[in-house]
Amino acid sequence: MALSEFEIIDRFFTRGSASRDDVVIGVGDDAAQVRVPEGHDVLVDVSTAGGDDTADTDPASLGHRSLALALARLAARGGRPAWLTIALTRPLADERWLEAFSSAMTALADRHGVQLVGGDTTRGPARLTLHLHALARAGEILSPGGARVDDLIYVTGALGDGALAVLERSGELALPARDREPVLNRARLPEPPVREGLALRALASSAMVLAGGVAAALRAPLSDGGLGATIQVQRLPLSDSARRSFERAGGWSLALHSEEPCALAFTVAPRRRGELEQRFAELGLRCSRIGTVEQRPGLRLLLDDGSEYSGRSLG
Amino acid sequence: MALSEFEIIDRFFTRGSASRDDVVIGVGDDAAQVRVPEGHDVLVDVSTAGGDDTADTDPASLGHRSLALALARLAARGGRPAWLTIALTRPLADERWLEAFSSAMTALADRHGVQLVGGDTTRGPARLTLHLHALARAGEILSPGGARVDDLIYVTGALGDGALAVLERSGELALPARDREPVLNRARLPEPPVREGLALRALASSAMVLAGGVAAALRAPLSDGGLGATIQVQRLPLSDSARRSFERAGGWSLALHSEEPCALAFTVAPRRRGELEQRFAELGLRCSRIGTVEQRPGLRLLLDDGSEYSGRSLG
Repeated sequence: MALSEFEIIDRFFTRGSASRDDVVIGVGDDAAQVRVPEGHDVLVDVSTAGGDDTADTDPASLGHRSLALALARLAARGGRPAWLTIALTRPLADERWLEAFSSAMTALADRHGVQLVGGDTTRGPARLTLHLHALARAGEILSPGGARVDDLIYVTGALGDGALAVLERSGELALPARDREPVLNRARLPEPPVREGLALRALASSAMVLAGGVAAALRAPLSDGGLGATIQVQRLPLSDSARRSFERAGGWSLALHSEEPCALAFTVAPRRRGELEQRFAELGLRCSRIGTVEQRPGLRLLLDDGSEYSGRSLG
Repeated sequence: MALSEFEIIDRFFTRGSASRDDVVIGVGDDAAQVRVPEGHDVLVDVSTAGGDDTADTDPASLGHRSLALALARLAARGGRPAWLTIALTRPLADERWLEAFSSAMTALADRHGVQLVGGDTTRGPARLTLHLHALARAGEILSPGGARVDDLIYVTGALGDGALAVLERSGELALPARDREPVLNRARLPEPPVREGLALRALASSAMVLAGGVAAALRAPLSDGGLGATIQVQRLPLSDSARRSFERAGGWSLALHSEEPCALAFTVAPRRRGELEQRFAELGLRCSRIGTVEQRPGLRLLLDDGSEYSGRSLG
């Protein structure tokens, strides 16, 4: 039997989601009503997935990943995630699909204290629009701009698995058996850097997600500010899988260009380096210093011996 | 030449939209950042239109109407509309379609002080998701529940044009020449009751949009509260067109069941009747008292002579 919109929302999207004190009215017929703490601004991220992204084959990945990417983008702003609304269009109300999709999404939402406050489900070609709201004190919000000359450049986590997953899926590279499943699973169900983003508030001078890889992520905001950077390529933190497939997968270019939508790059003033590294260590979070912001435009890629890295050029 | 997402947003959605002091970061690559005044809550309305609703034939109506309906739903909560985000999926970036759609939407947004703060445009089967945010003091927010015995029932505006447009389009009724265009235009480009909703804050005991007609709009919330009502059918305010087509279009049933997604019903305690009617008169807004909330469940439809209205039954 076909499920009504109300039944879909009720059965698949209200259980498991966090219950927040600041949600006065949550999912229901009406508009949601939410309360913003004094001194806080609201950050709003809108994203749409459709077509191939919403393919029926992996609803759990769609549910998890679409929310994870939104969480990552708001983490790069230093926001504490709060409220989610979802507009889902499906050709059919397929219970198994909805079950897998919503379980994955609500599990991730719950882990980060995010409550679903509004939903709209309709029939039609597959489409998913998420609105994620985060809260942050006005003075603590991060942005991709704001880096200054001599600021230190860091990345969170470890790089390379994004590129390895692409290579493995396209058949260009066969990963060792021990790496294949973990790499593909991290691509399917990436963990957003929410705690990292919160740790950077009122400390980093700029922050950005590595959706297009670390080189691309740094280039645009630095260029907009009339600045450049030197990246010490061999300081880029490789994942274990990337280390094992290093030569075959393109050497350091792998880490430079790997798409890691759930990793952050950020910059910090040199005098705050100690504070930053201590904060990350205390929280058990990983970050690696990979370079320095400079007056001279463009990205310079250096090896440890001071020579220029001769990999793929960066324009 | 195909337009990029950025060009579409930049060319079609940023001009004309209101510029609000509480928008710290608006449309751009990043998440929006907005500021909520102290003591205010945020109301969030999510709606999706797709398929037939997004037919290419009338982009101006889609742009205007989808926002108007969201404005009406938040007006029924007493919210002052503030920020809009739009996720638009189109098979092609057709400039003429986008021009008509965005002009109509931004004109309406601007009239009500609404700023577009986020947008996402993608390729695919036609689909539109709007998120409209409104602001309201926590104590002044309205809801469909909250009516009490003896409260007076009102509707805003005039009823009937919604039903006439449906009858005219389906060929069931040929409207007089003088009414045809005005009726169809009001259905294409309805005016949301934003000022009416603001006038009801901290005054009405309940409020709701007449999306399914006045009878349906009242029945559910009263029934949820274990209450009922008597409606004095002949007090229902007919539009001029409805009056002219009264008999042919179904008599008072026309007004009872006409879908008027941009009209409100609301209830007011008897002791506040004077205040309510004075406030509406001062603002030049129209409202009509049509009945009374009662302890006895169900809707009773009475004619002026006290006899029961024998039109379509209401279950």
